[in-house]
Parts: sequence; structure tokens; C-alpha cells
Amino acid sequence: MRAIILSIGDELTLGQAVDTNSAWLSAQLASVGCAVAAHVTVPDDQPAIEQAMEEAVGRCDVLIVTGGMGPTEDDLTRQALASVLREPLEPNETWLAELEKFFQARGRPMPSANRIQAMIPRGATMIFNTCGTAAGIDASYISGDQKTVCRVFVMPGVPKEMRAMFTRDVMPHVKQMGGGAVILSRTLHTFGLGESAVAEKLGPQMMRGRNPSVGTTISGGAVSVRINASFPSMSEASDRLRETESACRAALGDLVYGTDEETLPEVVAKLLLEKKFVVTTAESCTGGLLAKYLTDVSGSSAYFKTGFITYANEAKTELLGVDPGHIKGHGAVSGAVAREMAVGALRRAGADVALAITGIAGPTGGTPEKPVGMVCIARATARPQGPEAQARTFNFPGDREMIRDRSAKMALTMLRYRLMGKDLPF
Amino acid sequence: MRAIILSIGDELTLGQAVDTNSAWLSAQLASVGCAVAAHVTVPDDQPAIEQAMEEAVGRCDVLIVTGGMGPTEDDLTRQALASVLREPLEPNETWLAELEKFFQARGRPMPSANRIQAMIPRGATMIFNTCGTAAGIDASYISGDQKTVCRVFVMPGVPKEMRAMFTRDVMPHVKQMGGGAVILSRTLHTFGLGESAVAEKLGPQMMRGRNPSVGTTISGGAVSVRINASFPSMSEASDRLRETESACRAALGDLVYGTDEETLPEVVAKLLLEKKFVVTTAESCTGGLLAKYLTDVSGSSAYFKTGFITYANEAKTELLGVDPGHIKGHGAVSGAVAREMAVGALRRAGADVALAITGIAGPTGGTPEKPVGMVCIARATARPQGPEAQARTFNFPGDREMIRDRSAKMALTMLRYRLMGKDLPF
Repeated sequence: MRAIILSIGDELTLGQAVDTNSAWLSAQLASVGCAVAAHVTVPDDQPAIEQAMEEAVGRCDVLIVTGGMGPTEDDLTRQALASVLREPLEPNETWLAELEKFFQARGRPMPSANRIQAMIPRGATMIFNTCGTAAGIDASYISGDQKTVCRVFVMPGVPKEMRAMFTRDVMPHVKQMGGGAVILSRTLHTFGLGESAVAEKLGPQMMRGRNPSVGTTISGGAVSVRINASFPSMSEASDRLRETESACRAALGDLVYGTDEETLPEVVAKLLLEKKFVVTTAESCTGGLLAKYLTDVSGSSAYFKTGFITYANEAKTELLGVDPGHIKGHGAVSGAVAREMAVGALRRAGADVALAITGIAGPTGGTPEKPVGMVCIARATARPQGPEAQARTFNFPGDREMIRDRSAKMALTMLRYRLMGKDLPF
Repeated sequence: MRAIILSIGDELTLGQAVDTNSAWLSAQLASVGCAVAAHVTVPDDQPAIEQAMEEAVGRCDVLIVTGGMGPTEDDLTRQALASVLREPLEPNETWLAELEKFFQARGRPMPSANRIQAMIPRGATMIFNTCGTAAGIDASYISGDQKTVCRVFVMPGVPKEMRAMFTRDVMPHVKQMGGGAVILSRTLHTFGLGESAVAEKLGPQMMRGRNPSVGTTISGGAVSVRINASFPSMSEASDRLRETESACRAALGDLVYGTDEETLPEVVAKLLLEKKFVVTTAESCTGGLLAKYLTDVSGSSAYFKTGFITYANEAKTELLGVDPGHIKGHGAVSGAVAREMAVGALRRAGADVALAITGIAGPTGGTPEKPVGMVCIARATARPQGPEAQARTFNFPGDREMIRDRSAKMALTMLRYRLMGKDLPF
């Protein structure tokens, strides 16, 4: 079964609001095996709405329309639908009575403008709105030659009203119509390798046309692997998803830091809590971003107590005890200074593990030997015989913001591997 | 001039990601008088992409396409465009050289998969990508009978890459194509008051149907006032924009911290540099975010040297000298503790001014007396007779992320007023 989602509203095509309804509806439809062929958005313009509806009904089995159902003159979805169905709009007495009651309960007469919200094309069914004044519409489009048949559901654009209406009175019909495939999805998140390197590891899993399908997306430097399984039954979809997920996990190993909604700070937090480790930070170019990530998680006070931001060289020396001679000799951006920062922070904070970052975030300050994007990250661990520290040097692409962000996430990744007792795999 | 925006990606039609690009692009296009006729979204499916492109080019003057430009096999936008243009894909040598350099700088050979990101349909122009590996495409569709002509811009779907590319290399062409009315815009940014309070101050300026039009938008807690002047000539648009801008500035006073692209950290940085002040930070609930904002600006080492993250009570005492008795007596979230944190940081860092934040970011940890969202922010200034400190208590709405973000921005705002020698106006 194929669906098209049509969103209507000037605020959408003017960019004054982001359309979240289409994504929500798509996820709902996918969960019952209904493939979404397209999202279409048009302004509050009756000819444009009619054209979009006419094209959509010929291309899908179910058309879901949201928006343009308000009581004002710029709301034209009902009129457009009636015109496409070639039926007149008629008042729905049940909903008119509901509207009267609604306004009575608020001690006000019903404004005449609201009457339009009870108008339904002849032959269509009214859908109850449990949290607003606009009734929805359940209609069937049948072309003159009877060759094209499409079920059309029209709902208000207010997300809260739309979601309640869809769940209560549209989803059951979609399920009944479907009998189609069940789609299950899983997303695996990685950090550290580029999109093509991740794809190389996945190899044949990513071949086009496979089911379950495997694709990669990149967001904030993290490469995520999305697996979609589309099968006639839930058990088959679930089994095949599990198989492909296992194959992807085997190919990627511990590059995968999280699944679905999990974030890198959450995963690191969980590992810190498991090990009962307290972490501290010493940041130069990231200026507090690493500590911010570590404290994104509620309850972070269990593993994070103190952080140092030593942006200036003197601060590195005064706060963390970095040898000024080393800063002069190796430069502030060097593995040696990063290690001293980490060890100094570890000692000062009395922590179990410390992360230090020093680098050139740009756009100025780069040299041929130490270009913008060069960042040294160190990790120090408390040991009975004294702190042990390791440093790595990276060259991150992008602008200041990206370089700072990748640096902080790479430090989290180095901590994650340390907590797993492993070396970085790249 | 009419535009259509086409977004490509399985993650969109499966509802795994919300399409924010279309709204952003629509707002950009609207700002130069280009009407957006539709948004269309299709999955990573070459026939579907081709069909959507073929339909769109006949209905608009400019087609903006985003997504499906990655290096993996599920990215098919280039191939679809080439097919619609009936031209072969050819490697762009300039971008290939850039890609080679990019990977060389990272000490890795370029994976062969990335070559596709330099492929451009014959006759089209490559668009530089300043923050990623996918080159964009600037092409012209001309139908066989020469009746249909449409300019097509194709960009990656990663919002950051897309926005940089659009601003730098697409917007100038769109403006040039326009030719109609001259639209000039100005945006004034405020922080501290809500949207309706700002609107109240603006009064009649915001009346519907006025030209220049005045509207408010809210983003990241900042309320921005957008003025659009649409007139036949540049001089008229410019004069009328200036008039309305003056009226808005008169109504808002020093609530306006910046104009157009200016950010709050940039404005504060400029004031700090002017005064030759060094600032330090002492953060509890924001965990480094305030320092991160202060170091967002390139060259921040001139005014930011040291920052303290004292998430735990012991850290407040050890690092900043906060009296443990005061923490016990007033609570860690109190004006008294915030002031002591600021004074301690000021002294330890030898700075001219210090900001301290302590609060309850939630979702847990609130009490009836000190609910989630309660945040105390202090500002301390070095004086010959010793440090002077003031604290304010705020109740911020929203979730953990919002509360932390508003807290850091409010601290910057308190610093901004201090640097202007004024009191907070709210």
C-alpha cells in the first residue's frame, strides 16, 4: 500500500514553521507497512491544493491531508476537496451540535465563521475531533472510469489535534486497508570514521534493492546506519531485521556506540556509572563544550564534579601545572601539553580519568606545521603507580564550530574506548 | 519568480528525520521575494526522484534540491538529475583535486566511493562545498522545445553544508534572477523578554498589511524582529526600511543586542575587547556551556583565559573557595552561593569580571521551593576596594537543554548590560 502526505499552509511554504506532521505520520504509516511515496506541501491557495490532490489520488492508495481546516478565510482545504470529489459541501449536523455545545460550555455564542468547520463533502464521513473545533473528513475518491480509487483522510494541521484524530479514527482504517508489509527499523550510530569508510566496512549489506535495506546518514560528525525491514508479517520483519542488524554489528564491531535514540554522552555516562568512574576535563580550544556534553545527561553529578577551561597558556600552567618550558618547546598544541593537561586535571580534581583537548579551531591561528583543525586530545587514567596518559593528534575538517564539536566528540569516543578497556580502532 | 523545493531521503519519507531544510530555504527565498509554490519530498529512489524533478521543472523558475549527495550507493540525486537533463555525469577536476587534498590532509587515501561526489552533469557548474565532501550542482533545464526553462540548484542535505552553500553560491543567483520588487530586510535580535512583551513594545509597527512589515520570531530563547521592505526601487526600499528600523529601535531601546547575523557571543566579545576586560566563568548547572559561548568567537583568547566548572559542591569550595556553611545554609542554588562562586572565580583567574551560574536544570532535583528551571546567576566585578557582586534568580521554562541554554544566554546578557554600564531592564 502506498500513501502520500499532503500538508497545507502558507506558514510552511513561507518557512515560518517547520512541518513536523509529515515525519510523524510517515513513522506511523511505516509501522503498519504503508510506504510513503512522497510528502507534498502547498500554500493556502485553492487551485494549488486542488492540483496537488488531483495528482496525488492517482498515485497512491491513501492520501493523508493536514492543514487548512481552520475557521478563517484563508483555510480552503474543505472547498478544494469538495471540488476534487465533484460533490457539494454540506453541514454535518452531528458536528454542528458538538460545536454549539463547545461554545455554550464556554458561555459564548458560536461565531458564524466556525460553521465551516462542520462542512463535509456529500457522501463523505465526518471524523470526530477530540481536542479542537475542526471536524476531519474521511472520503473516497473514485475516478469517472472507476480505474482510480483512493481513500482520502483530511485532518487539521495543529499537531495535537491531528495526532489524536489519526490515532483514534484513521489508523484503524489504514491497518485494515493495508494487509501489506510490516516495516521495522533500527539505527546504529558510529563516530570516528567517515561515511564512505563505514560503507566500505558494511560492504554487500548496503547493496541497493536488498530487503532489509541498509543506508548511511551523517549528522554532527556521527555516521548512522539505518536498517529497514519490510515484510508481510511482524515475525518475519523482526527476524530479518535482527539478522541484518547482527551482520552490520559484526562488520562494524565496537564502532557502534549506540542504537536508535541513544546519544554519545548517554552511552559514555552509562559506562562511567557502571565503572563508578569520576571524569574531569581540561579544555583549551573547545572552551567548555566537552564538559557541556558530559553534563547533558541528567544525573551527571554522579560522574562529573569538576572541569577546567584553560584557554590561555598561563591558565594551563597555573591551574593544571603544565610546564611552561614544554609549552614553549612543543607548542601549546602538542601531544606533550595535552598529556600534561590531562594529568594535571586528574590530580587537581582527584578524578579516575581525565580528558584534555588543545587545538587550533580557527579560522585564524593556523600555520603550515599546525594547520587549523589540528587538535591534540589526551586521556589520563589514575593508576597505583601514578597517572598514565596517552595523546592522539587529529586533523578535523570544517569550520570553527565543526572542529570544536568533532574534538569534543572524539574525546568522548576516546573515553568510551578506555572504559571498554580497548584501544581506538582508527 | 516561483520556486519549488525538493528534498530527497528515505529518512524523511520514513519519518526518521524532520525536514528542516525546506522551511529554512523557504524563509530565505521569501526574503528576496521568491514565492515557494511547493515542497516535495521523495525517497532515495531514482525513478521517484526523476519524476519529481521532471514535474517540478515545468512548474517553477528555480528548483532547489537537497539530499542524496553522499558517497554511498543509496545516494542517487546526481544520477537522477543527469538523466532528467539527458547529459552524462562527468568528473569535475577542480573538486576531485579538492577531495584529494581533503583526504591527504587527513593522512588517508581517498576512498574510491567519494569520487561520485565530484561528478557533475555535462554543461552544469560545480558549486563549492566549504564544509563537506559533496560538491553542489548549478544546472539549467531547457526542454526540447525550449519552452520550459528552469534553473536547478542541487545541494547536500546536511543542513550546515546546505546553508553555507546556499548563502555563498545560490542566493546571489536567485537575487539576480528576481528582477521584480526590491526586498530589503533587517533583523533585530533581543534576549530577555518574551515574544508578546516584545510585540507589545513594538505596538502599531506590527500591524498586518503594513509595508515595511514587522514580525517577530523566536529561536533559542531570543526574540528577533524581522523587518521586510518591498518596493519598486532600491532607494525607496532602503529609505523606508531605515525609517521602520529606527522606529523599532526606539521602541525596544537597548533590548536589541544585535542585527542580522550578529550573535550574542559576538556582541559581548566586541564589548569586552573595547573595554579590554578579561572575563572568567564559574559554572554549575550549565557545565561549560557559558564558556563555550564565550569562546565561540575567533580571537576569544584576548578576553577569556580561564573558566571553572564546579558541578559538585566540593568543587565549588575547593576551586572557588565557596564557604561550605553557605552551601548548607542557603543551598547550592542560591544568590549567596552564586555570588561567592563569581567572586572566587574572579580572584582565582585574576579577571576583570566574572559570571557564575548555579541552578536546577532538571528533569530531576526540583523541590516546591526550588523548582526545576530555577537558576541563580551572579556577576562580579573587580574594584579597587575589592570585588563587587550581584546575583539574580530566574525561573526558566522548558527542558534541561533549554534551561541550560537560557541560563548561559542570560549570563551573557547580564555581562552585556554591565559592559554598557547599565542595569538589566527586566
